[in-house]
Amino acid sequence: MDIYQKALKLHSENRGKIEVKSKVRVRNREELSLAYSPGVAEPCREIAKDRDKAYEYTARGNQVAVVSSGTAVLGLGDIGPEAALPVMEGKAVLFKEFANVDAFPLCVGSREVDEIVQFVKLLEPTFAGINLEDISAPKCFEIEKKLKEETNMAVFHDDQHGTAVVVLAAVINALKLVDKKLEEIKIIVNGAGAAATAVSKLLLDAGAKNLIINDKIGILNKNNLEQYDPLRQKLIERTNPQNLSGGLEEAVANADLFIGLSVGNILKAEMVKKMAAEPLVFAMANPTPEIKPELALEAGAAVIATGRSDYPNQINNVLAFPGIFRGALDLRAVEISEEMKIAAAEAIASLVGDKLDYEYIIPDPFDQRVVPAVAFAVAKSAVENNLAGLEISEQEIKEKIAKSLN
Amino acid sequence: MDIYQKALKLHSENRGKIEVKSKVRVRNREELSLAYSPGVAEPCREIAKDRDKAYEYTARGNQVAVVSSGTAVLGLGDIGPEAALPVMEGKAVLFKEFANVDAFPLCVGSREVDEIVQFVKLLEPTFAGINLEDISAPKCFEIEKKLKEETNMAVFHDDQHGTAVVVLAAVINALKLVDKKLEEIKIIVNGAGAAATAVSKLLLDAGAKNLIINDKIGILNKNNLEQYDPLRQKLIERTNPQNLSGGLEEAVANADLFIGLSVGNILKAEMVKKMAAEPLVFAMANPTPEIKPELALEAGAAVIATGRSDYPNQINNVLAFPGIFRGALDLRAVEISEEMKIAAAEAIASLVGDKLDYEYIIPDPFDQRVVPAVAFAVAKSAVENNLAGLEISEQEIKEKIAKSLN
Repeated sequence: MDIYQKALKLHSENRGKIEVKSKVRVRNREELSLAYSPGVAEPCREIAKDRDKAYEYTARGNQVAVVSSGTAVLGLGDIGPEAALPVMEGKAVLFKEFANVDAFPLCVGSREVDEIVQFVKLLEPTFAGINLEDISAPKCFEIEKKLKEETNMAVFHDDQHGTAVVVLAAVINALKLVDKKLEEIKIIVNGAGAAATAVSKLLLDAGAKNLIINDKIGILNKNNLEQYDPLRQKLIERTNPQNLSGGLEEAVANADLFIGLSVGNILKAEMVKKMAAEPLVFAMANPTPEIKPELALEAGAAVIATGRSDYPNQINNVLAFPGIFRGALDLRAVEISEEMKIAAAEAIASLVGDKLDYEYIIPDPFDQRVVPAVAFAVAKSAVENNLAGLEISEQEIKEKIAKSLN
Repeated sequence: MDIYQKALKLHSENRGKIEVKSKVRVRNREELSLAYSPGVAEPCREIAKDRDKAYEYTARGNQVAVVSSGTAVLGLGDIGPEAALPVMEGKAVLFKEFANVDAFPLCVGSREVDEIVQFVKLLEPTFAGINLEDISAPKCFEIEKKLKEETNMAVFHDDQHGTAVVVLAAVINALKLVDKKLEEIKIIVNGAGAAATAVSKLLLDAGAKNLIINDKIGILNKNNLEQYDPLRQKLIERTNPQNLSGGLEEAVANADLFIGLSVGNILKAEMVKKMAAEPLVFAMANPTPEIKPELALEAGAAVIATGRSDYPNQINNVLAFPGIFRGALDLRAVEISEEMKIAAAEAIASLVGDKLDYEYIIPDPFDQRVVPAVAFAVAKSAVENNLAGLEISEQEIKEKIAKSLN
């Protein structure tokens, strides 16, 4: 049996991957009267008096909705909400297994921005966080922006920001190996989809000054940015300070860092050879990277990262989103800000420590230190940036996170 | 500690009552590659080809959303969606503990019919069933009607139909004790809220011919029904064949069966004395019944039923909704029809068997036979009425239900 047949078997044997379990028992009248009527009236009355009590008496504070329209699923594209459900269940599994977050998949029967926004807004009494997933660009940008403005939930589009956080973590460490600075290097991001956009933005926010985005239409510059939606235009204006034009070949010349979030086999060995000394190549197209790692190394790449688990330095979102939500939920954060994401990336990078090596620039996804470290960094950043609903000491943050993960 | 303090403690110790658990393990790379990327792509592809495969590869077929606006919660009234969450979590607990249904509470931040309908419609790719809960009348009628017309999920408003099913079960057995027939008796339903409306409708659909509804404005008849919404007007037209007017006193005279879904202490002993011989008194207002059971018995009532667990014959919805949804989900029913509800009521009634007694007209909520019997009756009825998504034999139905409950 290959991996796909094994996966089918796993899914059908279990009829999906999640269940909604009771944390209390109802085996007799007394238990029933406490979990349900008439006893349940008391927590209801307490929350009616003070809505914040929902954090104490309900699961809301630990609940994240994994919301998808199924319009940009993995490498499968627009397969619709029903077919996207296995991915969203998988995400819920990862939330629970990695960070003890109760995530519920909601695949919505709509592809309209306003309908999806309205749907998610109505979820606010039930959920403290929203993880948007596999929604096509540019709608995902609009949806996220509106939800950030119009709700007080911790909203995160993992395809964008999860990827961006892990890429930044890997970049921080890779730059140490080649002794370069983010502020000084030339970066080429290949692709202008959701992930590429967020990666570009986070690198810029973290200090990058010379970042060029190349997409199907060529290098994005002042002359062609109107082909994009207003939200991406704003970003593109922060890139390409020399207003270069041309295509990938021109973009990649003398670049210190290539970040591919595009399609397989698009980066040629000759292009790598024309990059700056000790170039970093992040080829994250899945399942086929922008360049085969072996080829890139032959052509002179100093560090290679991919999205695959069968090569070193896998850029895996599971390093980021479980800890980010753990930290955001535990501090009742009303937003997941750029500062919180950068804090998460720095926390991930720091765990590598003095084991840093060309084949070890980011921790393993199963490294048990990752989630607590990311959660703590995010929670601390939320407090510092006045985005937390609680004001507690660092020691209390640590204890709270440890308790939640238990 | 009284029951309310105990309930508060239970809720805060557990931070709510439900959690979203993984049914699969992800402790290493291989497990991760099956539950998530890349293996998960295969069930996605299968469902994209044939949407029915979602029953096989996802949890959708066992998932029910417990949807509430929090506008008519228990005896607490309009306390809002946040404060309603403990009740909806409690409902989800009962679904799981009694019938192994994965129910998720969704308390929506809206009180508008169209917004709630639109919200629930977008849930269809994720859920096979919808349990509406604690939504105020008349909006609940409109919401339910639209959802039945515009979706293929099994939609059920438990406050209405759960109560109606259990009342009908109790009425069937109580009538045996006094040797009367549903078709021949005079019934007075006191109250015209959601539950009273559904009880009246189901009794009429089950064969009752002489049913009178009395509400705050008096006996409902041709002259005053325009004070109600169109959906209730249609029902009221089927009641009160002699077009009686007046109030509770006039309504209850010579009645064989009093059904109270109204307020405490409204039925006087003198009124019970003026009922027909061997009258049945169902006084279900909570926590204070329409008449104290002791008083009603003194005044000549043959059988008493209440909503309370500290008296015999408790009308408890938990006898109905878990089994109803178990049967509907297992047969992929696209609706929960009147026939299915009557079948559920008959199944509940039949379990009492020859142990039938004035203090035992309905089974105990913890009687383990209830859920499988109700589920089977509902599933069989769904097949007979062409509302099932599967065509299978009675034996196969039994096996399917047994497997789901395991």
